[in-house]
Amino acid sequence: MLSEDGAMNIVLFEACEVEAGGSLSMDDERANHVVKVLRRGVGDTFDAGMIDGPKGKARVLGISDEGIELGFEWGVEEPELLAIDLIVGLSRPQTMRKILNEATTLGVRSIRFVVTDRGEPSYAGSKLWSTGEWRRHVVAGVAQAFTTRMPEVSWGMSLEEAMEAVGDVSERLCLDNYEGLMRLGEVRGGARTLPVALTIGSERGWTCRERDLFRARGWTLVGMGERVLRTETAVVAAVSVVREALEF
Amino acid sequence: MLSEDGAMNIVLFEACEVEAGGSLSMDDERANHVVKVLRRGVGDTFDAGMIDGPKGKARVLGISDEGIELGFEWGVEEPELLAIDLIVGLSRPQTMRKILNEATTLGVRSIRFVVTDRGEPSYAGSKLWSTGEWRRHVVAGVAQAFTTRMPEVSWGMSLEEAMEAVGDVSERLCLDNYEGLMRLGEVRGGARTLPVALTIGSERGWTCRERDLFRARGWTLVGMGERVLRTETAVVAAVSVVREALEF
Repeated sequence: MLSEDGAMNIVLFEACEVEAGGSLSMDDERANHVVKVLRRGVGDTFDAGMIDGPKGKARVLGISDEGIELGFEWGVEEPELLAIDLIVGLSRPQTMRKILNEATTLGVRSIRFVVTDRGEPSYAGSKLWSTGEWRRHVVAGVAQAFTTRMPEVSWGMSLEEAMEAVGDVSERLCLDNYEGLMRLGEVRGGARTLPVALTIGSERGWTCRERDLFRARGWTLVGMGERVLRTETAVVAAVSVVREALEF
Repeated sequence: MLSEDGAMNIVLFEACEVEAGGSLSMDDERANHVVKVLRRGVGDTFDAGMIDGPKGKARVLGISDEGIELGFEWGVEEPELLAIDLIVGLSRPQTMRKILNEATTLGVRSIRFVVTDRGEPSYAGSKLWSTGEWRRHVVAGVAQAFTTRMPEVSWGMSLEEAMEAVGDVSERLCLDNYEGLMRLGEVRGGARTLPVALTIGSERGWTCRERDLFRARGWTLVGMGERVLRTETAVVAAVSVVREALEF
């Protein structure tokens, strides 16, 4: 199934759903996916995962008008997420939806959406958050990546709070098209044993106050060239470069 | 203006429009952008570019119900595009729209959408191509990047034809999640004086026949880790890594 959020390469279940025995109502998007897209019948299996748990196989035990009954056979736990802590300026909800999905697919372990000087703080009050919709995009990103682990997601703290929250890291990188001292690709891991923190601003960039804050706290301002990227493109680009340059 | 294709960071004009004297009908999306979004009045200027030509300023000389009259003042030519030749398997039109936009924003100089064994050849006959819609996504990608140069775009040739068409390059890289010999980020430019060719498959990956073809013709199969990415995410990720690793 190809939704806006990508393919459901694995059907994910909450731990409580698995404990409850594994049935899906026909109203559930996943039941539709199993029956209509994967075309599984009674006795057939498909790739399944327990959120933040193992991957394995689900077998269709029964299908009725109400829903499908499943049995599970679990394998080993999935590898840890990449030790990349992402901080992004609060952005338009449509942008944040894409970032939630794509940064999750790429495997970062945390995403913090922060208030920035030039961002719009009201985006912290978006329905994306209050309705819990955000989690759907994260689950879709996990399923796209064919794995089970969910990154930690938070929103609405100040940039300063997020900078403190990342803790001990081997690199503190902040993307800045204007005052980057070096290219992001020039950052080399070497004996990297700690996580990497990566900050990407809101659409309108950083203020002098924020740049001073980064410099005072040991962050390196890095660039990715002159071309102006959308925030969501910059997130995918920067996380991908960090994944490769720092040997994740 | 923030469309699905991103921000219109510069208002782009065809050379023939500039030669014709610079007027925009009020039905034109760009006139609306200048008047309603940028809120320019008579005498005001805004960033303008001539497609494949210089950047500069446009000045509003007059506004009527029919449209706006403009005068131009051109600066220097824009830098060349990055010497990255991208080959992508024909994909669903929605995926190709995103690739046209985002690969253009990132600055590749050519994009070839090719027939692959596991792709759907009918996507070469999509209305995206026959109506000329594809060009709109490319122009939007150029405007997002705040520049003027258009990549060469073509579609429907075979993988073999596209492999031959890239000509002399210093690296021939093909993304392959399964049989990649090294990580994409391990490819290092060194004395790179020639373009880099980068191939990304259709959603369902390569066949053995295609892998043999790549190997026989001196292409290196490279990976970006275990996580399964959507085609459009893989394009942004791989182009970004090549931009940084090969020092564009």
